[in-house]
Amino acid sequence: MNASTPAHPRSWSDLDARAVDTARVLAADAVEKVGNGHPGTAISLAPVAYLLYQNRLKHNPNDPLWLGRDRFVLSCGHSSLTQYIQLYLGGFGLELSDIEALRTWDSLTPGHPEVHHTPGVETTTGPLGQGLATAVGMAMAQRRERGLLDPDAAPGESPFDHHVFVLASDGDLQEGVTSEASSLAGTQELGNLVVIWDDNRISIEGDTQIAFTEDVAKRYEAYGWHVQTVDWTAGADGYAEDMDALDAAIDAAVAETGRPSFIQLRTIIAWPSPTKQGDHSSHGSKLGGAEITALKELLGFDPEKSFEVTPEVIAHTRELQDRGARLQAEWDERLATWRAANPDRAALLDRLRARELPAGWHESLPTFEAGTSVATRSASGKVLTALAPALPELWGGSADLAGSNNTTMTGEPSFLPAHRSSHEFAGDEYGRTLHFGIREHAMGAILSGIALHGLTRPYGGTFFQFSDYMRGAVRLAALMEIPPVFVWTHDSVGLGEDGPTHQPVEHLAATRAIPGLSIVRPADANETAAAWQAILERDKEPTGLILTRQNVPTFPRGEQGYATTEGLARGAYTLLDASNGAPEVLLLATGSEVQLAVAARETLEAEGVPTRVVSMPCLEWFEEQDEAYRESVLPSSVRARVSVEAGIALSWYRYLGEAGRAVSLEHYGASASAEKLFAEFGFTPERVAAAARESL
Amino acid sequence: MNASTPAHPRSWSDLDARAVDTARVLAADAVEKVGNGHPGTAISLAPVAYLLYQNRLKHNPNDPLWLGRDRFVLSCGHSSLTQYIQLYLGGFGLELSDIEALRTWDSLTPGHPEVHHTPGVETTTGPLGQGLATAVGMAMAQRRERGLLDPDAAPGESPFDHHVFVLASDGDLQEGVTSEASSLAGTQELGNLVVIWDDNRISIEGDTQIAFTEDVAKRYEAYGWHVQTVDWTAGADGYAEDMDALDAAIDAAVAETGRPSFIQLRTIIAWPSPTKQGDHSSHGSKLGGAEITALKELLGFDPEKSFEVTPEVIAHTRELQDRGARLQAEWDERLATWRAANPDRAALLDRLRARELPAGWHESLPTFEAGTSVATRSASGKVLTALAPALPELWGGSADLAGSNNTTMTGEPSFLPAHRSSHEFAGDEYGRTLHFGIREHAMGAILSGIALHGLTRPYGGTFFQFSDYMRGAVRLAALMEIPPVFVWTHDSVGLGEDGPTHQPVEHLAATRAIPGLSIVRPADANETAAAWQAILERDKEPTGLILTRQNVPTFPRGEQGYATTEGLARGAYTLLDASNGAPEVLLLATGSEVQLAVAARETLEAEGVPTRVVSMPCLEWFEEQDEAYRESVLPSSVRARVSVEAGIALSWYRYLGEAGRAVSLEHYGASASAEKLFAEFGFTPERVAAAARESL
Repeated sequence: MNASTPAHPRSWSDLDARAVDTARVLAADAVEKVGNGHPGTAISLAPVAYLLYQNRLKHNPNDPLWLGRDRFVLSCGHSSLTQYIQLYLGGFGLELSDIEALRTWDSLTPGHPEVHHTPGVETTTGPLGQGLATAVGMAMAQRRERGLLDPDAAPGESPFDHHVFVLASDGDLQEGVTSEASSLAGTQELGNLVVIWDDNRISIEGDTQIAFTEDVAKRYEAYGWHVQTVDWTAGADGYAEDMDALDAAIDAAVAETGRPSFIQLRTIIAWPSPTKQGDHSSHGSKLGGAEITALKELLGFDPEKSFEVTPEVIAHTRELQDRGARLQAEWDERLATWRAANPDRAALLDRLRARELPAGWHESLPTFEAGTSVATRSASGKVLTALAPALPELWGGSADLAGSNNTTMTGEPSFLPAHRSSHEFAGDEYGRTLHFGIREHAMGAILSGIALHGLTRPYGGTFFQFSDYMRGAVRLAALMEIPPVFVWTHDSVGLGEDGPTHQPVEHLAATRAIPGLSIVRPADANETAAAWQAILERDKEPTGLILTRQNVPTFPRGEQGYATTEGLARGAYTLLDASNGAPEVLLLATGSEVQLAVAARETLEAEGVPTRVVSMPCLEWFEEQDEAYRESVLPSSVRARVSVEAGIALSWYRYLGEAGRAVSLEHYGASASAEKLFAEFGFTPERVAAAARESL
Repeated sequence: MNASTPAHPRSWSDLDARAVDTARVLAADAVEKVGNGHPGTAISLAPVAYLLYQNRLKHNPNDPLWLGRDRFVLSCGHSSLTQYIQLYLGGFGLELSDIEALRTWDSLTPGHPEVHHTPGVETTTGPLGQGLATAVGMAMAQRRERGLLDPDAAPGESPFDHHVFVLASDGDLQEGVTSEASSLAGTQELGNLVVIWDDNRISIEGDTQIAFTEDVAKRYEAYGWHVQTVDWTAGADGYAEDMDALDAAIDAAVAETGRPSFIQLRTIIAWPSPTKQGDHSSHGSKLGGAEITALKELLGFDPEKSFEVTPEVIAHTRELQDRGARLQAEWDERLATWRAANPDRAALLDRLRARELPAGWHESLPTFEAGTSVATRSASGKVLTALAPALPELWGGSADLAGSNNTTMTGEPSFLPAHRSSHEFAGDEYGRTLHFGIREHAMGAILSGIALHGLTRPYGGTFFQFSDYMRGAVRLAALMEIPPVFVWTHDSVGLGEDGPTHQPVEHLAATRAIPGLSIVRPADANETAAAWQAILERDKEPTGLILTRQNVPTFPRGEQGYATTEGLARGAYTLLDASNGAPEVLLLATGSEVQLAVAARETLEAEGVPTRVVSMPCLEWFEEQDEAYRESVLPSSVRARVSVEAGIALSWYRYLGEAGRAVSLEHYGASASAEKLFAEFGFTPERVAAAARESL
């Protein structure tokens, strides 16, 4: 085996064939042992996965995070054994005991593959469609990273050139998120992306023809992809795993550099299981003892043994470690050459790999003048533009709302094949401004793919209302503990005339509900700048930055009793304390409603009620603080409390206690001006002050 | 004009042309007056909308809810003026003052069209993609309703035959939800569905080529649709609104009864506005005075006047009322003939139109034996099967999880073209079991379309986790106050080995957050039956029915101190009171955790602590109850309280007060058996009892 020219299937030895069959029986045994799981696809796709892992992917089992590696995404995450068994055979860190521990507590082999949990897994999959859409993001990230580090190298000659391979199932291709992402991949001409569709025509309800009769290959042609079909069911002598045909298709896909590639691979699920091949029972249930016995007999395994792997097989498959080491060593040489020629870029690479921000980066953050009236979305746009030179790793865009979300860094080119440039947006393949189209869900998954790829920090915007559309991807980002930033503007009925279909009411509560997601809703322009600083200084969680459409006052900072924005990073802080320092009532507010709390405080203080205004931009960060800090901001002795937020009160009951009152909106909005809506719905200083009096 | 043969554009009079131009200037004026909105599409699509409303649609302005009407869906809801102006011209109830009141408080013309608010609006649109996906549901409902009422009529001969017309925009076609719905529409061969795509190549970020370069027509061919293209930009003399070509395409679309139809209509946004045609500024901003003046001069309107409609124009367009009356009168005759021939079906129709359940219907509800162990999903499946004969209006299915969601009524055929039947599911075009494929978001919108169509009650299932995927549609159903039922099973970490990607943690809180959506999580099999009864007796809101994968004990009812399930319809009730009737601690629980509360009560009572167990299947229904009832269930004097729910505590703080404790799960789950997970995560009677002691 030569490191630079992958061994082709026609050169597979008997040991290779035995290793593939070993993968099949391991899949059957593992599901049988735990009693549940998905054996069928893992059995029939074993040769495909083996081909990719052993022959095609540039990767190194001893360094699963090798920067130069190809990425592999198992979009059909339910077939996790497809990946786990190859990670075991190839020697990425899984052992036979891990395969035996499938789907059990604390194992390295959970029901669905989880990144940061099992070495060699690039992204968490299982919710269908997410894998393929995330892979589109990885492919985009590869191009952007190459542009930052090695833009002038000839195609295929850069150490930063590599491919993203995806195995996808029927389910992945039915989900709308992949339609969105695949269409965008066509526009972006992602020649580094190869998707193999396991067209087995079986899903949980059986034959897919009851719901999925479209011509998928034609659809991918319509997206502008390079499309091929390999049909293993069309042989004159029945089903034939024509590995050479598949391998040739992969060759052609890799050779195609101007378009993403789609390979329709017609298979029979669970083949060669004697009676359950082609049957949906093999999709999500164990095969059962009789079928496993028959399968093992067919393949020449001892039916009395489970988890049988001969020393010869494992020794052979673990030669992948040598191949990987050679590949990486060759790459290291190329990287060294690049380093020598590109010292500044090498320094950038080292900083990005360390995930460090450059010294003094935040000095470029703007400050906003007190007394001005600025929408926080507008402030956010100014922050992004100001940060652009200091943070080349920061990039992003919008789901067709660039001008509304203020997500474009002024003067930065679009990330687009140059010939796609428009009157409004000029771009090049290494550009910085992302155009997702009206595809919020794909945007979410793509941002995750970019973040997972490792070197850059992505953000993406839409109206907060449409966080609903992308929620599947947002949750997965939180589960993966990766840091995309969702710029969600038009954050309340304050967006006005677009009406209830566009006005978030429950979204603050509903997004805060997602474990591991931080929701940051700054009160004014300077809190917005501080929010970006705090968000970028964190690196292990996604964040939703919740911004107003409408103008809000810019508070004086560090004067007239107002705190600086230093407290923002702690999630909540006393913005304006009671005049006597001993508050009798606490007004808790976020975003555009902080101004109402400030005005109500004036009324209450004039009535002799010492009143503290607490700005609480991020409840999650506040909950991280120690008890002493939390008590200092919200003293438990002060039971009179009012929350003020233009949305449902759900988030606030835990802070209100039995005496507190919520100024909230428990129903949908309406189509009218922001001023009218705030007045009609009772978001006024008067109502806040009245609620405080009730609470006292 | 003849009621049965629509006037074709080539017969348009000067008055028709003037009416179309009137629609254009009204659109410009209305946006200008309020200062914001979307004039461009309303201007360029005015002739299309006029053609549909005046010539093509079978409808009656004097009876916008006429059962026999065609349905019209403006999927590009931001262009609401496209619809409002036709509703005004046609005389559906809007007057010029309503057009002038666009996007203002309490007007009939909100920013986006809202069903149940503006007569003639069939569904609320605005969130892109929802309209087209909902229309697919309407088209499916039409076929099912025909099957219930007039299955043997020749095609096109039934009073229950009609079409669903959709105007869709670039944005609609980029959203994944329409990809999902359109693929399914192809499988379902919905010959009654006609979609016109306004291919103006402009969205908010300008030229769509930066994000949307696919061949949409080819994609729809791939879905199996009948596809035509009409290009108004291809004329030798520049742009030409070739109405005859469009009309011929609609003729062909209507003539095609075996496939849904897609008409790609190439237009220029805002045409004929002199300088803003084709410019994205016309999409979402007012044109400005100079441009409006120029537009009016071009079209022969007085630039000094706003909202100019001549008496001749409005008299002409309101002749639609006569046409509608004739159409409905003809239809009434056909219906009377049908009634005479089908007295039983006529009685069914009358019941369905009245939205009444048949007398005694709930007598078919099963009861489950105390002491058995039954998953609530399984109980739900038995309830559905039991209800099938009594409630022909009830139908539904699953997003490829029929066997897991238990959503199939045993023995009922699938809703499928017969030749799509599979080994697993036999069906016919009028069948009852829906197969959505792995398309949760489209399922949500389709269920709304079915509900909006008016005669039946739809339900659809998936894993509760994937409520995230369909959230956009669920929220819209709640906003519309329509009653689809979402059967969300696998409702907690209790689903076990599939792991954190599939385990809901935050979903109970996050779905309860949606205003107007009821979330019902029954504790056992008999509560599940009672839940279906209560859900079906309500008709103005969507419901999420939250069910376990795992078995739960069936409590004795009306004996051994256990309440009957009668209290379920009130949202919460005392399942087991303190032995002395004077509880010192309240255990609040839902679903599979009620059994933990019951077990903990036993411990606490043995320790001498009078303990009440409150089953709280639906917090929304409980909040509807009067103060006295709520106080009787949760006496404010009892401050020791424990909530027990296998998810985040967010929903419970409002009930816990300052002394209460939550037994909750504030992080993601893991892949292991349900038993292991409940033990590891502290969902045990011991922890509940300990929390009660802390709370006391």
